[in-house]
Amino acid sequence: MSVDKRSIIDVDIHHNTPNVQAIFPYLSQVYRDQISEWGLLLPSYPFMNGGKWGRRVDADPPEGGSPGSSLEHLRRHHLDPFNVDYAILTGEFYTAGTIADVHYASALCSAYNDYTRDHWLDKDDRLRGSINIPKQHAQMSAQEIRRLGNDKRFVQVLVPGGAEKPYGNPFYDPIFEACVEHGLVFTIHIGNEGQGINPSPTGAGYVSYYIESRAARTQTMMAHIASFIFNGVFEKFPTLKVVMQESGVMWIAPYLWKLDQDWKGLRYQTPWVVKSPSEYFRSNMYVSSQPIEITPDPAMFKPMLDAIWADEKLLFASDYPHWDFDSPRLAFPKLDPAYRQRIFYDNAAELYKLPPRL
Amino acid sequence: MSVDKRSIIDVDIHHNTPNVQAIFPYLSQVYRDQISEWGLLLPSYPFMNGGKWGRRVDADPPEGGSPGSSLEHLRRHHLDPFNVDYAILTGEFYTAGTIADVHYASALCSAYNDYTRDHWLDKDDRLRGSINIPKQHAQMSAQEIRRLGNDKRFVQVLVPGGAEKPYGNPFYDPIFEACVEHGLVFTIHIGNEGQGINPSPTGAGYVSYYIESRAARTQTMMAHIASFIFNGVFEKFPTLKVVMQESGVMWIAPYLWKLDQDWKGLRYQTPWVVKSPSEYFRSNMYVSSQPIEITPDPAMFKPMLDAIWADEKLLFASDYPHWDFDSPRLAFPKLDPAYRQRIFYDNAAELYKLPPRL
Repeated sequence: MSVDKRSIIDVDIHHNTPNVQAIFPYLSQVYRDQISEWGLLLPSYPFMNGGKWGRRVDADPPEGGSPGSSLEHLRRHHLDPFNVDYAILTGEFYTAGTIADVHYASALCSAYNDYTRDHWLDKDDRLRGSINIPKQHAQMSAQEIRRLGNDKRFVQVLVPGGAEKPYGNPFYDPIFEACVEHGLVFTIHIGNEGQGINPSPTGAGYVSYYIESRAARTQTMMAHIASFIFNGVFEKFPTLKVVMQESGVMWIAPYLWKLDQDWKGLRYQTPWVVKSPSEYFRSNMYVSSQPIEITPDPAMFKPMLDAIWADEKLLFASDYPHWDFDSPRLAFPKLDPAYRQRIFYDNAAELYKLPPRL
Repeated sequence: MSVDKRSIIDVDIHHNTPNVQAIFPYLSQVYRDQISEWGLLLPSYPFMNGGKWGRRVDADPPEGGSPGSSLEHLRRHHLDPFNVDYAILTGEFYTAGTIADVHYASALCSAYNDYTRDHWLDKDDRLRGSINIPKQHAQMSAQEIRRLGNDKRFVQVLVPGGAEKPYGNPFYDPIFEACVEHGLVFTIHIGNEGQGINPSPTGAGYVSYYIESRAARTQTMMAHIASFIFNGVFEKFPTLKVVMQESGVMWIAPYLWKLDQDWKGLRYQTPWVVKSPSEYFRSNMYVSSQPIEITPDPAMFKPMLDAIWADEKLLFASDYPHWDFDSPRLAFPKLDPAYRQRIFYDNAAELYKLPPRL
């Protein structure tokens, strides 16, 4: 096995349960019975994903179970060869945010969080966890954050891109209060756009194909950025840090240019927004890299990264074991080593309060 | 009055009626009575716009009536000083696309189209018209296109960005058939996102402020692009030309990079999409300039234009008399004169089959 010389932090690894029974010890009898008879009853998309059921074709653990469900295989296949010092686990359970029954959603999130703690965080010091929340209900979400927030191995609160309201809406303030209280990052990972109780995935309704659905992820993330900024979330919660995951990278700079320009002409309408949108992005937001776009003109790649202050804001993510995995060795063109170290390690270490690279 | 030396084509001028009674001669008694008693009953946004009711504060015609309603004032204030050889009228009536009553929507569109012909196209040879359609109903829309399509002063069919389904959905095919039959451009002008029968303006629900709503326009236009390309509209209708109006410019290149990259990995799912998304953009799509974003780093401006082949695809638009009007003199940084002429004249002349500049 070849091992990379320089260690990295990978901020998006989708661990999974080997089967649904793995969360049963953390669920009450009523839900165990329901799931045994009817399955999880989570919404699913009416189109294909990529790869093999959305995963890399080579990610099945030899010991059985679904891709991402074996810590042993994750170590062998990803953590060890790529010399991953720390991995932020993002799981596969934020679909709980798409169901109308908030009690069930809340029970699923708590069970999955407990499963993650007992079966992953307890077993490898390199792993850090995400707190899944029933984001349909802000107070229940805050309660779940406070239940786990003192366990410092949980480094962020995780929600999907698909949402009933954009995340800057004051509806969500109790969640941000709890995040700030526990020094937890708030991370939006794409997913669930247009599913269940969420509105249609685009401002023009439903899409027909998976590839359109991927394009819609960027659109929804744009809505969240604008919502955070113009609702003044970062004025109310100046220490809150927000990460955008898996929505791409290159669109961010032009979007900030537009928001800055509009803000100059319209700031009188939102006087609580005292800095330009790009300043709020720089002070409070981060973006994970996968799936990073390659520019047709290679000379554009670095300027597009510089335009979003990538040496402060960009966090390497592999998305293991999903099919559109970005390899730490191949996803980026050659970069200056100091610049690369910011993206592959230092930015994440500072954000998530992890030790610096030795 | 100073007059610009080089003439231009302006592809987005919002002419208007002096009052609602101006369309009464083109409406049946039932709608005249309804409008007299209840007004137009069109949805409106629950937030401010910019300027004075969305218009430039200096655009009120001295002879009275709303901004954009006086041809005389349009000539003095805009067409003559900026040496506009041709102006494409886009009006103020695409909100008809937001109402559930398709008979009423259809009647409004027809009335407005007839008003435009009689009061504008008949009175100044520089003007060209847009056919408003009740896009909620594809067959009624096709009928309206065929009613007016032989009048070559109508150069395009106009729909708003807000829509029940993205415009590549096969639902709209009868509209494209009629466009192609009459050599009419299909133009999507931002507007009506989240209004009336349209879904929420973002993939994460409703926005709180006008500036967020402006940001949502870009998102919705992205959905339309992906929909056109991945539904294979340009394979079914290879001669169809689509213009995107007022959704910004700089986001397009990074969006095409992303679509191209995804298409490479997923094209087996949509085998009817035989070219890359950026190739379809280049062969079938156009974008109007206003409101064009200024890049914080001036050195990025031209490369971002080159990345969307602006010398073929970008059409100058002022958006007169709206408050965020782009002046032909000020909106762009200094460009090479030949490049500038492509954007300010030639691209539009070729697309709309207008005479070349003398």
